[in-house]
Amino acid sequence: MLKPDANRQVRAFAPATVANVAAAFDILGFALSNPGDEVIATLTDEPSVRLVSITGDEGALPLDPKRNTASAAIISLLEATGSDAGIDLELSKGLPLCSGLGSSAASSAAALTAVNALLGEPMTARELLPFAVAAEAVACGVGHADNAAPCLLGGCILVRSTDPLDVISLPVPEDLACVLVHPHCEVRTADARMVLRNQLTLTRAVEQWGNVAGLVAGLCLGDLELLGRSLSDVVIEPTRSILIPGFEQVKRAAMDGGALGCSISGSGPTLFALVAGDDRAEEIGHAMATAFLEIGLGSDVFTSMVGTSGAHIVEDGR
Amino acid sequence: MLKPDANRQVRAFAPATVANVAAAFDILGFALSNPGDEVIATLTDEPSVRLVSITGDEGALPLDPKRNTASAAIISLLEATGSDAGIDLELSKGLPLCSGLGSSAASSAAALTAVNALLGEPMTARELLPFAVAAEAVACGVGHADNAAPCLLGGCILVRSTDPLDVISLPVPEDLACVLVHPHCEVRTADARMVLRNQLTLTRAVEQWGNVAGLVAGLCLGDLELLGRSLSDVVIEPTRSILIPGFEQVKRAAMDGGALGCSISGSGPTLFALVAGDDRAEEIGHAMATAFLEIGLGSDVFTSMVGTSGAHIVEDGR
Repeated sequence: MLKPDANRQVRAFAPATVANVAAAFDILGFALSNPGDEVIATLTDEPSVRLVSITGDEGALPLDPKRNTASAAIISLLEATGSDAGIDLELSKGLPLCSGLGSSAASSAAALTAVNALLGEPMTARELLPFAVAAEAVACGVGHADNAAPCLLGGCILVRSTDPLDVISLPVPEDLACVLVHPHCEVRTADARMVLRNQLTLTRAVEQWGNVAGLVAGLCLGDLELLGRSLSDVVIEPTRSILIPGFEQVKRAAMDGGALGCSISGSGPTLFALVAGDDRAEEIGHAMATAFLEIGLGSDVFTSMVGTSGAHIVEDGR
Repeated sequence: MLKPDANRQVRAFAPATVANVAAAFDILGFALSNPGDEVIATLTDEPSVRLVSITGDEGALPLDPKRNTASAAIISLLEATGSDAGIDLELSKGLPLCSGLGSSAASSAAALTAVNALLGEPMTARELLPFAVAAEAVACGVGHADNAAPCLLGGCILVRSTDPLDVISLPVPEDLACVLVHPHCEVRTADARMVLRNQLTLTRAVEQWGNVAGLVAGLCLGDLELLGRSLSDVVIEPTRSILIPGFEQVKRAAMDGGALGCSISGSGPTLFALVAGDDRAEEIGHAMATAFLEIGLGSDVFTSMVGTSGAHIVEDGR
């Protein structure tokens, strides 16, 4: 490993990601261009990892390095590489917490990308992935890859298997856009996991994996109509949607506006809608926000093309 | 519709198909080049559908037109098209019954293809599909499309949904070969359905649809290694394999021989193995047959490229 320069500073951005893409629960996620988190990482002479500041979280996140995904990822990265580098991290949260937008994965992906650059890029993004996955356990209790992988690698990622980790980049149709609507209410990931049924019927499972197959084929073949028909979740959405006020009305607003499909992003409460071309995305986002407003909920709307480049360096103060 | 010529005769062939491709239970099937069934259809002056002969079934199949998939499909085709044509069918079974090779679908696909030609091709293969699916209910009690669709259309077919019927042709990697080993024992489709568990855990379901997604992506992207890793069935194979003597040994023989994967074809007892390139296919088939023989079971071995052209006219005696 190169001997890094003390006081060198790198700033990295990592975007929102949509996981649990309708039927593809736990196995598929894609990156967007915004919103996202930023991390400024600075080399220091102290042989420790410090989380010196967090902004944008309204004081909700702990500064204890072991309890934040950004710093936890860096601690295990340095351990694994045998580095005695000292790192200060400044985390700027652009992603709302507990929103279903992969907030914890974005923090660790931004930190890993920045620190990897500081250390002279000893690792590829794929090699960084296990550290981001392990850090997810800090936030969620479980080390999932379906946000971490698209966040670090960009694009649309199939997580075929978690153990062993097997992630595959899928093609993304050029004109596929995404609308995110984040209502101002909170669904804790733990609650969202708790409402899941542990058992399902074989009939429902077959229906679900028919749609998983259709979704993957739609992406690979660039067939947006097939993709739209396949955006149906008969297993997870029926139970999780009860935690999101106005879910049915907002989904209907998206579909009436011409979305290919609409479902829950991650474990919610954000809803995502996929749209052919970005010219209608804003209009659909507006219709969805209006539907939330009709039941008294404010929301933030973001639009982006699907499958953007993932975590990247914004500024390298070498 | 053209007025058909009495006594005109058409002979059609329809191939074996592999359905329940590992994790893709009930939603994926592909056509092979052999073995298969043949049907000779002859126009007559009698306004009725007759099944005048069946060979190759050792007397097992009924000549009652309503109880055989070949003639049952034609009866509903003529009803739907309002035709008063008289048709005689001669069915030559090249596919063993209850073998897991789509024998009933091959009979109806051959009959539909022959009679459609006799009638002046009023329908496309896709338009014939509902009649083949409905005829499956005669043999299986349920109108599945995962054998009927690849048998009629050729290639590798995703059945995303049965109601409404939504079938999608998937790309097939050029050098993908298949070995079929049909042991001389019988598994009744009804028994194979009976051993299925009606419930599964969400954890298993997620594992399964990760492999479904990997399988579809492997086919679409021409990634044979991914396809091989994805040929894993944690839901159906563990229970159905107990009905097939020697299953573990035969599967191990295929994998040791270098197969990409090996699982149960349809509801068994035939095993299929997928192989990169056809040059090793025969050798792998021989190893699998030897493994069956070691527990005292004879078998038939067939090799073919995957995703061939499906049902087609062999002879048109216009």
